[in-house]
Amino acid sequence: MRYDILTLFPEMFTGVLGHSILKRAEEKKIVNYNVVDFRTFSKDKHQRVDDYPYGGGGGMVLTPQPVFDAIEEVTKQSRCEKRRIILLCPQGERYSQKKAEELAQCDQLIFICGHYEGYDERIREHLVTDEISIGDYVLTGGELGAMVIIDSVTRLLTGVLGNETSAITDSFSSGLLEYPHYTRPVDFRGLKVPDVLLSGHHENIEQWRHEQALKRTYERRPDLLNERNLSEKERDWLQSMKKDK
Amino acid sequence: MRYDILTLFPEMFTGVLGHSILKRAEEKKIVNYNVVDFRTFSKDKHQRVDDYPYGGGGGMVLTPQPVFDAIEEVTKQSRCEKRRIILLCPQGERYSQKKAEELAQCDQLIFICGHYEGYDERIREHLVTDEISIGDYVLTGGELGAMVIIDSVTRLLTGVLGNETSAITDSFSSGLLEYPHYTRPVDFRGLKVPDVLLSGHHENIEQWRHEQALKRTYERRPDLLNERNLSEKERDWLQSMKKDK
Repeated sequence: MRYDILTLFPEMFTGVLGHSILKRAEEKKIVNYNVVDFRTFSKDKHQRVDDYPYGGGGGMVLTPQPVFDAIEEVTKQSRCEKRRIILLCPQGERYSQKKAEELAQCDQLIFICGHYEGYDERIREHLVTDEISIGDYVLTGGELGAMVIIDSVTRLLTGVLGNETSAITDSFSSGLLEYPHYTRPVDFRGLKVPDVLLSGHHENIEQWRHEQALKRTYERRPDLLNERNLSEKERDWLQSMKKDK
Repeated sequence: MRYDILTLFPEMFTGVLGHSILKRAEEKKIVNYNVVDFRTFSKDKHQRVDDYPYGGGGGMVLTPQPVFDAIEEVTKQSRCEKRRIILLCPQGERYSQKKAEELAQCDQLIFICGHYEGYDERIREHLVTDEISIGDYVLTGGELGAMVIIDSVTRLLTGVLGNETSAITDSFSSGLLEYPHYTRPVDFRGLKVPDVLLSGHHENIEQWRHEQALKRTYERRPDLLNERNLSEKERDWLQSMKKDK
């Protein structure tokens, strides 16, 4: 996977791309990061990349020229066939694990990260393939969104996670939130680990975990249950949870 | 605002906290970042912070001791009164602009960032005040979530953004997605700016923008319209948008 990141703040990326799994994925040559300061593509004599909006109003707007030219350059450099050009913005499609799985099938992801400014509409309409928002909150720029997408996609690529199954058993993939975890000590300041987990009875442990996962999902994210085909046992558990409430 | 960040990867934060608005907010002494490697609090002789889960299964679980001790230390250091202890995890409450506004009222936010591992349930139950997920996707650790929250909260603090109104007129605050922006040139490779924006007729421009904002919201995020009290004009516009469809 080749990642091209168009930003005005390239140094924001060093910490995140240079550590942990994202670093190791690059060392293993599974991914490649190309962080581009698109200001260097500006043909303005002062290297400006934004200008006042037509029709008035506050704020600045990114001009199309540097963005179009930077994209042309990074697409020319690569021979990738499955390419997406992603604009990070609050108006975009809400990012999800399903979208991460879809993007993980590509071989080049190009991110356009605005900062404070709005984007000239011609960038949206004639250049990008995907507009994505990582959530319903306002961020200073698209940089954190690009990092979030890169992290969530990279960990899905073959060879990145040590244990191939790790990505699969995570939250959301099963459709239920995770059950509670406990590790040593058995007694921490008087707070104890549930007996069942110490019993060594695998069937009971599995049953307890399944029920706890369902309970947590019911309490915190009941919307996830609507999308799920419940088993008979799960329906019974839900019934008694509703009674207890 | 004081931010304490408990992580095993402190260097991940340098790029994001050291640039742009987050850097300037610290220089203006509006915020203070304290990034803590909680491994240094481990009483294990090998400085381990995780251990195998009781009841078996894959993956590792963060032990309670280093996290409890690190939190005790950073709360002792401060005299803050409105404090939240935030766990980043997929099981948490979904983060939103409303939550950002709520957190911006505090004077200390402490983040616990796990990485690969799960959290021992006693950390959740007896230590944290808020469990937050920034979206329905799986990330390698809580670090990016902490950065997202810090960015979205900091820009709401008084004195951080140059123009006090900037934060208010952003997306989500108005309940509609933003209207399209255009800047120079009028003609970019044959792609033109809409005539109305060049007309100088302020009332028409305002009307066009309002209708475009409604249209974009209707097409992309109709759920946002359900939460909104529509004006009569907005209802008329929606009617004809539905007909055109």
